[in-house]
Amino acid sequence: MSDTIATTRRGEIKKWSQTLIPTAREAPADAETPSHILLSRAGFIRRTGAGMYSYLPLAWRSLMKISQIVREEMEAAGASELLMPAVIPIELYKVTGRDEAYGELLFRVHDRHGRENALGPTHEEVITDIFQHAINSYKQLPLTVYQIQTKFRDEFRPRAGLLRCREFIMKDAYSFHLTVDGPGGLNETYDAQYAAYVRVFERLGLDFTVVDAESGPIGGSASHEFMVNAESGEDKILVCDSSGYAANVEKCEIGERAWSFEGEALGDLAKVHTPGMASIEDIGRFMKVKPANMLKTMVFDAGESLADEPSVAPGGGQRWVVAVVRGNHDVNESKVRDAIGGPVALADEKEARAAGFAIGYVGPAVAVGRDDVLLLVDPDAAQSTDSAKGKAMFWAAGANEADHHVKFFNWQRELGGLLDSSDQDASARRVDLPGASARRADLPGASARRADLPARIRVADIRNANAGDPSPRAEGSILREQRGIEVGHIFKLGCKYSDAVGFGVLDQDQQRQSVIMGCYGLGVSRTLAACVEMSHDENGIIFPAAIAPYHVLITLMKPDDPAQQEACARVSGELAEQGIDVLIDDREERPGVKFKDADLIGLPVRLTIGDKALAEGAVEFKPRRSAGKGELVPIDRVVARCADVLGD
Amino acid sequence: MSDTIATTRRGEIKKWSQTLIPTAREAPADAETPSHILLSRAGFIRRTGAGMYSYLPLAWRSLMKISQIVREEMEAAGASELLMPAVIPIELYKVTGRDEAYGELLFRVHDRHGRENALGPTHEEVITDIFQHAINSYKQLPLTVYQIQTKFRDEFRPRAGLLRCREFIMKDAYSFHLTVDGPGGLNETYDAQYAAYVRVFERLGLDFTVVDAESGPIGGSASHEFMVNAESGEDKILVCDSSGYAANVEKCEIGERAWSFEGEALGDLAKVHTPGMASIEDIGRFMKVKPANMLKTMVFDAGESLADEPSVAPGGGQRWVVAVVRGNHDVNESKVRDAIGGPVALADEKEARAAGFAIGYVGPAVAVGRDDVLLLVDPDAAQSTDSAKGKAMFWAAGANEADHHVKFFNWQRELGGLLDSSDQDASARRVDLPGASARRADLPGASARRADLPARIRVADIRNANAGDPSPRAEGSILREQRGIEVGHIFKLGCKYSDAVGFGVLDQDQQRQSVIMGCYGLGVSRTLAACVEMSHDENGIIFPAAIAPYHVLITLMKPDDPAQQEACARVSGELAEQGIDVLIDDREERPGVKFKDADLIGLPVRLTIGDKALAEGAVEFKPRRSAGKGELVPIDRVVARCADVLGD
Repeated sequence: MSDTIATTRRGEIKKWSQTLIPTAREAPADAETPSHILLSRAGFIRRTGAGMYSYLPLAWRSLMKISQIVREEMEAAGASELLMPAVIPIELYKVTGRDEAYGELLFRVHDRHGRENALGPTHEEVITDIFQHAINSYKQLPLTVYQIQTKFRDEFRPRAGLLRCREFIMKDAYSFHLTVDGPGGLNETYDAQYAAYVRVFERLGLDFTVVDAESGPIGGSASHEFMVNAESGEDKILVCDSSGYAANVEKCEIGERAWSFEGEALGDLAKVHTPGMASIEDIGRFMKVKPANMLKTMVFDAGESLADEPSVAPGGGQRWVVAVVRGNHDVNESKVRDAIGGPVALADEKEARAAGFAIGYVGPAVAVGRDDVLLLVDPDAAQSTDSAKGKAMFWAAGANEADHHVKFFNWQRELGGLLDSSDQDASARRVDLPGASARRADLPGASARRADLPARIRVADIRNANAGDPSPRAEGSILREQRGIEVGHIFKLGCKYSDAVGFGVLDQDQQRQSVIMGCYGLGVSRTLAACVEMSHDENGIIFPAAIAPYHVLITLMKPDDPAQQEACARVSGELAEQGIDVLIDDREERPGVKFKDADLIGLPVRLTIGDKALAEGAVEFKPRRSAGKGELVPIDRVVARCADVLGD
Repeated sequence: MSDTIATTRRGEIKKWSQTLIPTAREAPADAETPSHILLSRAGFIRRTGAGMYSYLPLAWRSLMKISQIVREEMEAAGASELLMPAVIPIELYKVTGRDEAYGELLFRVHDRHGRENALGPTHEEVITDIFQHAINSYKQLPLTVYQIQTKFRDEFRPRAGLLRCREFIMKDAYSFHLTVDGPGGLNETYDAQYAAYVRVFERLGLDFTVVDAESGPIGGSASHEFMVNAESGEDKILVCDSSGYAANVEKCEIGERAWSFEGEALGDLAKVHTPGMASIEDIGRFMKVKPANMLKTMVFDAGESLADEPSVAPGGGQRWVVAVVRGNHDVNESKVRDAIGGPVALADEKEARAAGFAIGYVGPAVAVGRDDVLLLVDPDAAQSTDSAKGKAMFWAAGANEADHHVKFFNWQRELGGLLDSSDQDASARRVDLPGASARRADLPGASARRADLPARIRVADIRNANAGDPSPRAEGSILREQRGIEVGHIFKLGCKYSDAVGFGVLDQDQQRQSVIMGCYGLGVSRTLAACVEMSHDENGIIFPAAIAPYHVLITLMKPDDPAQQEACARVSGELAEQGIDVLIDDREERPGVKFKDADLIGLPVRLTIGDKALAEGAVEFKPRRSAGKGELVPIDRVVARCADVLGD
């Protein structure tokens, strides 16, 4: 059947002298992260411009192997590959407003006729345009397509080599559905992609964590990040070892925390003059209060979000949400949004001042006597007793007056009338409380106290999680911090893009339906860098077999020696028969140079062919991971030993 | 050994309903060429912007198959794959002056910091920069690298779908050498690339011609084009069927043609007033002379090229070269350059006028009495007898006076003293005549007459070849015109790029040597289009097996029928075992629609599974190339039949 159709795959054999591996003693001056340093020194990459790298032959082989595994798992998940253009008419991004949302991150190209184009950073708009023209019946859905493509983002400050560059290789997949649930729905494909990602990263031999994530500017209702675990990673994630729950800091839920506003005051409220102090730390130092004993208070503008809220007191919805967390915690806007059940944004400073908020000096007491304020308190801030010490405590807080703070703030005393206000509709509120809060309201203690709260005060998880916080999934467990590098991110997009371009189809009942989308990104070049961050030592890279550019390096001590050449030909030929890729170091260099380079490029196995071992019918066998010297292995057993290591 | 290392390859099986094949009855309004029309209608491509196409799943599979064959042959030829950036700092192109040479063809991108970049149309500068930094010893050469990459050219008027677009996929290879000849030299790699290209296009199943070509703006000393033969091709090539010689029009040599200035005049020279006539055709019509009987005369500026020419008459080199061809022929600047043995350019009109040339009305007689003119006459213009009719002839020519031409021009009479001038150094000239002319000077007749020519007249092949011209390689044969589509172009670059960036290395003798380069381009996306131009009928594409997105299409008459599904599963599974890729048309459409689409997408074999045939244990088997109805083939023999067709 000629060579048109091949059914077998031999490993590849390449001589070092016939490829380009410019190893170097020194890394570029701007290289700081291990992957940037090692990929540069090992001759994998070369910088052509700021954030623009050439993938030299070794890197390219690794990227092709990553791509191939991605391709196989995408196909297994029912997706079809295609390729969209890199240069895209700006009009497509204008339809969704992403020309502005991306702003300067978008490379812009004006062609000779003056027409503006963007270099695609991601292709939701283009694929939606294609589908809008290609799909005219519900029968053609669901459908998932993907591409493996060079993408462009004009980063302000590219850095860390392949980790944050301006031109990079990404797999992006897009799925189209008529429903969210059920057969053919978004959730089914989302789960299939999730599973495909897990298989990809497992097959690549990476240590990774799947993380609940925020959707960010891509939009959508749910998303997961896939993070390669590496100490040097720029992303912080929180993990519960008992339940396997993991989330990034922005998304991470926090387990139930007991809270109470009831408790004795430790002293009289004291106003302190704190002029020109910018940070919680400055004020704390001046007032001799730890940040953990201060109430950080931020004013949000809820607009119309609370207008129709039945849980809110007579007089209609509040516009202002005053969020209170401990001084050593950070307010999480998404959680604030979830807690009030609608959109919310940090208040415009000017507008807030006009409404009577002493921005910079706001404290919880601002809610007293104001019908237009909803007070939202994090459980850790809703305390009147120091639970660790079992005794009464006090807070420092803003005095609601420019340049002033207060000491000895006590919730019960300072909120006074607000906490005592009538509570005739408590049961209704309990049902209507949104999301996470509602669940915690069912726990004993919390619900009892919550039911006692007046309408204009709520206690809810509204801060970023930290290491040591209680796990939201396993009672008694705490969250542990871990660092990682994001290599995949999948999203339930919903109708954001299809509605923007007006892409709908008629369903079985001739009703026009918005098409529901998912999108699924995987950083191919980033995965190579993440792998190096995860797996290296002081001598160089340590590649997992699946990502290694070649599986075995054969080092010839005397490249010109016929006996060594013959042994090399035999061993490399037998390895190739097994599908194993072989690089032969045939350079006329000192052994020390070759061994150093071998460790640097990090292939899983090094075989050394030298006179002494050869006289015994053996070669030196050394897995890259193993310490110390190699082991002499008879030539006729060495292929099996290599296969063992590579199959691990 | 886990799935990290695979030694077998199964064919792929895909259902039509799970991929995107938006076939259409109508092609886009701007589609005129067969490949544009058929690739659009068959759902292979979709236009996203002017000259920007998405490769939908079927096209992408074909492109991957082409790429894979290119990859295998490049590796077999000793080249290593890498990938360079698409966005390239403009400074790199400035070093070689190609930022200006490309001009508006270069897409330019200004980044957020205002730095200018180009979108790479080809990567000579980038790879030279990489090698300059990576190579520091002659021991590291020779080396050949390649990439398969999306390239960008801002064509003024993109057209013909994938044939002339602004974003396209190309394989570009670059080789680096210390010598031209001998082991490791440029010629060795050039020949290896030439052979690899032949194998690639043979394996792809294309009908193609290798053509001697001009290097054009890429530069260099030799080049060959690989053209897919197709009537609709935009390139015209000339072929000698006896010798196998083929060349493009610009490069094609022309066989020996007898010539003579001697011959009787047919009448007195007559001056004709020809004001405001722009073209040879206009003037000819007005003067009642066919273009073939007119002497088209063009003035070139040789600068210093002829300064040291020993063949030139006393008084030093001439600056002006007056080139004369028949009115129905075109002067070929490269041939003019070869004939004088140095650089030459069409004269600047203003300068030429200042030097006394009546531009637009120049005739050969301008050389009489001017020491600064070399008269260069094409053999077909150096005639005084109509050889076909065997009788005397006359010419029309420019009168060397504005708005005037002459009739009854006769070489012997009009050149008078110039032809009779002394000839003491004729033997020296014969040796020194450059290139092609020198070879022809050895032929009987030609040389005798040439030796008689005075120093300031030369007869040489200086025009573009046409169909019907004598073959330069086989006496008595003529050139035939053929149309083709350029899919490959290889160049001996020499030191143009390495010298521009100052890339040299020390050789064995510690002497600094310029590095010598070759470059080798292959249009991957263009090859797909060329294949369709070459191979289609009125119903659709007819794919060679190697380029077909899938090898076999199985059409299910009743996709929901369990018996048909079972037969399909069996046949497709067996085909996949043989490495054969299968597309299953499982759509609920009328058989007519499915059969039309099958012809349109053009897979090599269609199998139809229907109740009637199945009752006899058979399926309908129909190669795309065969006319008429399919043939019933027993299920257990159908895989072998498919393999037969695909192996042809």
